[in-house]
Amino acid sequence: MAARMSKAPLPPIAAIILAAGKGTRMKSDLHKVLHPIGGRPMLLHLMASVDALAPAATVVVVGDKRDQVEAAIAGTGAVTAVQEPQLGTAHAALQAREALAGFDGVLLVCFGDCPMLTADTVRRLCAALDSGARVAVLGFRPGDAGAYGRIIADIDGTVSKMVEYKDASAEERAVDLCNSGVIVAGASDMWRLLGAVGNNNMQGEYYLPDVATGAIAEGARVAAIETDAHEVAGINSRAELAAAEAQWQAFKREEAMAGGASLRAPDTVWFSWDTELGRDVTIEPNVFFGPGVKVADGVTIRANCHIEGATIGEGCEVGPFARLRPGTVLGEKAKIGNFVETKKAVLGKGAKANHLTYLGDVSVGAGANIGAGTITCNYDGYFKYRTEIGENAFIGSNSALVAPVRIGRDAIVGAGSTVTADVTDGELRLVRAEQSMKPGWADRFHDAMRKKKAAEKKA
Amino acid sequence: MAARMSKAPLPPIAAIILAAGKGTRMKSDLHKVLHPIGGRPMLLHLMASVDALAPAATVVVVGDKRDQVEAAIAGTGAVTAVQEPQLGTAHAALQAREALAGFDGVLLVCFGDCPMLTADTVRRLCAALDSGARVAVLGFRPGDAGAYGRIIADIDGTVSKMVEYKDASAEERAVDLCNSGVIVAGASDMWRLLGAVGNNNMQGEYYLPDVATGAIAEGARVAAIETDAHEVAGINSRAELAAAEAQWQAFKREEAMAGGASLRAPDTVWFSWDTELGRDVTIEPNVFFGPGVKVADGVTIRANCHIEGATIGEGCEVGPFARLRPGTVLGEKAKIGNFVETKKAVLGKGAKANHLTYLGDVSVGAGANIGAGTITCNYDGYFKYRTEIGENAFIGSNSALVAPVRIGRDAIVGAGSTVTADVTDGELRLVRAEQSMKPGWADRFHDAMRKKKAAEKKA
Amino acid sequence: MAARMSKAPLPPIAAIILAAGKGTRMKSDLHKVLHPIGGRPMLLHLMASVDALAPAATVVVVGDKRDQVEAAIAGTGAVTAVQEPQLGTAHAALQAREALAGFDGVLLVCFGDCPMLTADTVRRLCAALDSGARVAVLGFRPGDAGAYGRIIADIDGTVSKMVEYKDASAEERAVDLCNSGVIVAGASDMWRLLGAVGNNNMQGEYYLPDVATGAIAEGARVAAIETDAHEVAGINSRAELAAAEAQWQAFKREEAMAGGASLRAPDTVWFSWDTELGRDVTIEPNVFFGPGVKVADGVTIRANCHIEGATIGEGCEVGPFARLRPGTVLGEKAKIGNFVETKKAVLGKGAKANHLTYLGDVSVGAGANIGAGTITCNYDGYFKYRTEIGENAFIGSNSALVAPVRIGRDAIVGAGSTVTADVTDGELRLVRAEQSMKPGWADRFHDAMRKKKAAEKKA
Repeated sequence: MAARMSKAPLPPIAAIILAAGKGTRMKSDLHKVLHPIGGRPMLLHLMASVDALAPAATVVVVGDKRDQVEAAIAGTGAVTAVQEPQLGTAHAALQAREALAGFDGVLLVCFGDCPMLTADTVRRLCAALDSGARVAVLGFRPGDAGAYGRIIADIDGTVSKMVEYKDASAEERAVDLCNSGVIVAGASDMWRLLGAVGNNNMQGEYYLPDVATGAIAEGARVAAIETDAHEVAGINSRAELAAAEAQWQAFKREEAMAGGASLRAPDTVWFSWDTELGRDVTIEPNVFFGPGVKVADGVTIRANCHIEGATIGEGCEVGPFARLRPGTVLGEKAKIGNFVETKKAVLGKGAKANHLTYLGDVSVGAGANIGAGTITCNYDGYFKYRTEIGENAFIGSNSALVAPVRIGRDAIVGAGSTVTADVTDGELRLVRAEQSMKPGWADRFHDAMRKKKAAEKKA
Repeated sequence: MAARMSKAPLPPIAAIILAAGKGTRMKSDLHKVLHPIGGRPMLLHLMASVDALAPAATVVVVGDKRDQVEAAIAGTGAVTAVQEPQLGTAHAALQAREALAGFDGVLLVCFGDCPMLTADTVRRLCAALDSGARVAVLGFRPGDAGAYGRIIADIDGTVSKMVEYKDASAEERAVDLCNSGVIVAGASDMWRLLGAVGNNNMQGEYYLPDVATGAIAEGARVAAIETDAHEVAGINSRAELAAAEAQWQAFKREEAMAGGASLRAPDTVWFSWDTELGRDVTIEPNVFFGPGVKVADGVTIRANCHIEGATIGEGCEVGPFARLRPGTVLGEKAKIGNFVETKKAVLGKGAKANHLTYLGDVSVGAGANIGAGTITCNYDGYFKYRTEIGENAFIGSNSALVAPVRIGRDAIVGAGSTVTADVTDGELRLVRAEQSMKPGWADRFHDAMRKKKAAEKKA
Repeated sequence: MAARMSKAPLPPIAAIILAAGKGTRMKSDLHKVLHPIGGRPMLLHLMASVDALAPAATVVVVGDKRDQVEAAIAGTGAVTAVQEPQLGTAHAALQAREALAGFDGVLLVCFGDCPMLTADTVRRLCAALDSGARVAVLGFRPGDAGAYGRIIADIDGTVSKMVEYKDASAEERAVDLCNSGVIVAGASDMWRLLGAVGNNNMQGEYYLPDVATGAIAEGARVAAIETDAHEVAGINSRAELAAAEAQWQAFKREEAMAGGASLRAPDTVWFSWDTELGRDVTIEPNVFFGPGVKVADGVTIRANCHIEGATIGEGCEVGPFARLRPGTVLGEKAKIGNFVETKKAVLGKGAKANHLTYLGDVSVGAGANIGAGTITCNYDGYFKYRTEIGENAFIGSNSALVAPVRIGRDAIVGAGSTVTADVTDGELRLVRAEQSMKPGWADRFHDAMRKKKAAEKKA
C-alpha cells in the first residue's frame, strides 16, 4: 500500500477531546488540561491543532471542574458534553454522541492532557481510513515502553491485537509499539463500536482501545500509524508538565535561531506560544516572553527582561532589567532601559526612558527623553488617567507627572518636579521648594549621634 | 542473613565528623566544610543527618581554620576535638576519644566534606553490626571507579580485604565497589582498632580503612553496605561543590513539583535547604530562594525574584523583579510588583506595592496601596526608624515617608510628597511646592544648546 | 618520528584568514565572522590565537560586507585582501599573495568562522613541517563524520589522499578523520600549489584541500595533525553560534571555579572574553558579565546582576539586581544593592548605594551613604555634568542631585530634596515644601469616588 500524501483532501472530521478526568497527580485546584505550556493552556494547544483540520465540530468531554474548562473554551466554537459519573475513556467518548448527532464524517478521539498532537498526524490517521482501514490508532515507541498498552501489528501497520500491559504475554511485552490512545473511525463505525465496549475488567471501566479490538473482532482492518513519543506524551504531573514545557521551548528556540535571531544562552529564553521575532534580533540571557509580543528586525533585548503584550519596533533597545507590560508599543529605535516598567505606553520614534521609571497609560512623542526616576501617577485608587508627553520633551529626573496631564512638545520639566497642571509647548516647568541651608548642622548631628551610639553600646 | 528493617531501634550512637583537613583545592579562606549547598554549610547538612539519629554525642574533629568551624557549630550541641598536627584520618578519629570517654555504644566516623550521607544509610550500617559484624564500612559503585580504594567483599557483603588503589592487583582494580571512608563499630572495638593502626606507608599517615583491615586480621566479620555514589561524593573543589549543589537542587525541584507547585523552568529555580512551598504555587523562571522562606497555597511568583526570610500568604502575587528580604510577611492576596524591595515589612491582606518602591521597617494595613516610587526613609545614618501605614491608606507616587511616621487609615498622601509628620485617619496630606511656569524658556534653551553643540563639533 | 615539543621555536609565520563568504544561513545583516562569542567577534577570537604566534603578517581575505570586517580589525595590525568575485577557498587564499609578497616563512590558512583554533594547534602543524612534511593539514574526528571531506592517512599521519565526501568510496567514507580545512605550508610551496589548483568540479570552485592533493601528486609528504572536534567546529548558523558560545562559557566557568570562585549555578553565569575574577569570589545565579570587568578577592555578586566595564574592589557586595555600567570603579567593601545602576561612578571604600538609585558621572567619597531612590541628574538633553559627593556624606532618600553639583564631606541632604546648589562640608541641606494638611478630605474623597464607581457599574 503506497503512502498517501498527508496534504490530501480530508474527509469531514469532528473531534472529541476527552477532558473529564481528575488529574489528581497535579495536586491542583486548576483542571489538569488548563495548566499552561508556553503560556497557553494545554487544551488550547490541542484545539489549535484540531482547528487546523477545519473540523465540522469539536466536542470537549468535561466532568471534574467542568466550569473551568467551559470558561477556557468559551468563544472557540467548541461545545461540551458532560461525563458524569466517569466510567472510562470509551464511556467519555460516547457522551459526545448527542452533540454530534447527524455528523457522518470521520471522528477523532484525542486527549486534553496530550496537547502536542499535530494536525499532520491526524491527517495521516485519516489517510489510513481512506486506504481501507475501518479504524486507525496512533502508536509510538518510547525509550522505555514500561506499562503502556501495546499495539501488536504487522509490518504494513495492520493491527492484530490491542493489549493492556497487565494482560500481555512476555512476547507481547517485548513489542515496543505503544498505544497513545488517539483513535479515528467513521462516525457510524465509532458509535457502534463504542456502544459495544464492555466494562468486564478489574477497574470496571469502559476502555477506548476496545473500539479497535471490536473492529478486529468484526474482521475489519485496523491500521496503526506511528509518531514521535514526545508528540503523545501524556501530562499527568507537574514534572511532566515541566518536561513538556522544556521540549516546547527547545523547539521555539531553534525556530527563532533559524529565523535569524541570536540567543546568547538559548536555554534561558522563554517564549510564549505566540511570540513573533524579526531578523537580526539579539537576545541576551534570561528573557521571558509572555503572550502577545511582536519584535521587529534589528532589536536588541538585553539580559533579564520580562515582556508581555508588547510591540517592539525596528532597532529598539530594551533592558537589561526592563519590564514591558500589555499595551506597550515602542516606535522605531526607542529605548527602554534598566528598572523601567511600561504599561499601556506608546513611545514614538527614538523616545527614551533609560532608568528607574514607571510609564503607565501614557503616550510619549518621538525624541522625548524621560529622565531617571520619572513616575506617571496614573491612579487615584479608583480610576486610571492618561499622560501625554509631546515630541522632544525632556522630563527631568525624579519627576512625578500627575495624570491627567499633558506635557507639550519641546517642553522641559525640571528635575524633582511634581507636575499637576499641563505644560505648554516649549515651556520650562519647575516645581521646587527653596534650598534651606544649615551650615555646620550636620557636623553637630554626627557628633550627637556618635555619642548616642556609644552610650547605647555601653548600656 | 535476612535484611533488617532500617527503622529498627538503634543502639546508642555517637558521631565523629572529620573536618580538620586543609581543602587546598577550594582555594578559599573559608574552611571547605563551611562552603554552602542550598544555602547551608555542608557540615550542617551532615550534622542534620546525624541529628536525625539522636546521637549521644557528636564530635567534630577540627584543625585547619578551627575557629571558623567552631563558630559554625556553636549552639548545635556538638563538641570539637582538635587534631594538631594532622597525621591522617585514623589519627583524626582518635582525637575524639577523650570527648567520648565512657560512651560504649556505636561509633560512626564520617566526613565533613561528604555531606549528603543520610540517616537511613547510617541505620543500615548499624543494622549490620547488630547482625554480627564487628565493623561495617560504606561502599559505592561510581561510574568511573578510578583511583578510589576498593572493598573486596563476597556476595553477602562480608569484606575480605580493604585495598588502596595503588596497592591493588589488576584483579582487585577490576572490582567496582569503592570505599567511601564512612565506618561504624562499637566504641571499644573502634578505639582498640584505631589505636592499632600504623603509619608504615608512603605518606606516613594513619589511615581509617585500616580499622577494617585490623578487624579482619582479628578474624572478625567486617560488613560492607552499599549506597548510591552521589550520597558519598566528596567535595574537594568548587566544581564538585557546584555539582553537588546542582544535584541537591534537582532533588528539591522534583519534591516541589510532586507537592503541587508548577515550576515553568525548574532548572532556573534555586531553593534553600529550608524553603517551604504550598500547593498550586506557580513559579516563573529564575527565582532564587535564600533561607527562611515559607510560601502558602495559590501564590504566584513571577520571573526574576530574589526572596529571603519571607513569609508569603495565600494567593499573593510577587514579582517579576521583586526582592523580599528578611522580616517580610505578606498577608493574604498582597501584591509586591516589579523593582520593589521589602525588609522587615509586614503587609496586610490585599495590600499592594506594585512598582519601584522600598519598604523597610514598615507595617502596611490591609488594602493599602503604595504608589510607584515610594520610599520609606528608615535610616538616618545611625539608627533605623519605623513607618506605620493604616488600612486602605493611599500613598501617592514618588513619595518619601520620613520615619518615624504614622499614616492613618484611609489617609491619602499626594504624589511627590515628603512626609515628615504623622498623617491622621482620613486626612489628605499634600507636600508640594508651587508650579513655576516659564513659557517659551525651553524653546530658547533648546536653541542655545543646539548652537553650543554645533560649535563644539566644529572645534 | 618523535613528537616535537609544541613550544619549540617557530619559524616566521604569516596567517591568511578567510572571511569573504556570505554566511547566508545566519540570516543577518552583520557579517558572519563578526557575530560574537563571549562578547567578542569570532574573527577577533581567531586573531588572538594567531597573535599569540607573533606572526610576521596577518591578512584577512574579505568580500561580502567587507567594510564591516575592515572596521572590526582596524588597529589590530592585520591587513585585508579583497576576494571579488568569490571563486572558492583556494582562490580566496590566493588573494593574500600581494599583501605577503617577499615573505618566505610558513603560511597558515584558516577560517574566520572557525574561531576556536588555538595557537598550540598551529604550533603542532608547524612542527610537522619542521619534521619533513611539505604541507600539514588539520584533521578532527567528530561524533558524526557526516558529509565532511575525509583525510586518508596512515598511522604516522602521512596523508595519502584528501577526498570530498561525495567523491569518496564506501571504504573512504568509513574513515572518521575529517578535514578542518586549516592548512600550513612554506610560502613558496603554498603559492605554487595554490596557483595549480583547478576548478574542474561541479561547483566550478577552487578548493583549498587541493593544495594538499597537489603536494601528494608532487611526491611530497603531507602530514595530518589531529585536534578536538570542538576546536574546528565551523559556525554557520545561529544555532551553531549558540552551541559555540555554550562551549566557550563552560570552559570559562570551569576556569573560574578552578581559580577559587564559587558559582552556585555555573550554567547561569555568563562571562565575557576578558572577565577577571579574584579568589573567594561568590557568584549567585544569573549574573552576566559584559566586557571589561575585573573582580577582586572576596567579592560577593548576588543573583541577577548585569556588569560591564567595571572594576570591583576587595570585599565588595554587588546586587541582587544591580547594573554596573562602564566606568564603574568600586573601592574596597563598597556596596551596590538592588535596582541600582552605576555609570562612570567611582565609589570610595565602604561607600554604599543600596536601593533604587542611579549614579551617573559621579564620584562618591569613602563611607558615604546614598539613600534609596537617589538620582544624579547628569544630563540636560545636550551635555553631561558631574556630581561630587564627599566622604561620609549622607544623601537622604528620594533626592535628586542636579549636576554639576558638589556635596561636601559629612554633609547631609534631607530626604526628598532636589539639590541645585553645592552643599558645604558638614552642612544640612533641606529642600522641602510645607506640609499641607487637609483633615477629613480623604474620607470625603473616598465617599465620592465609591459613589462614582458604583454609578459606573450600574451604567
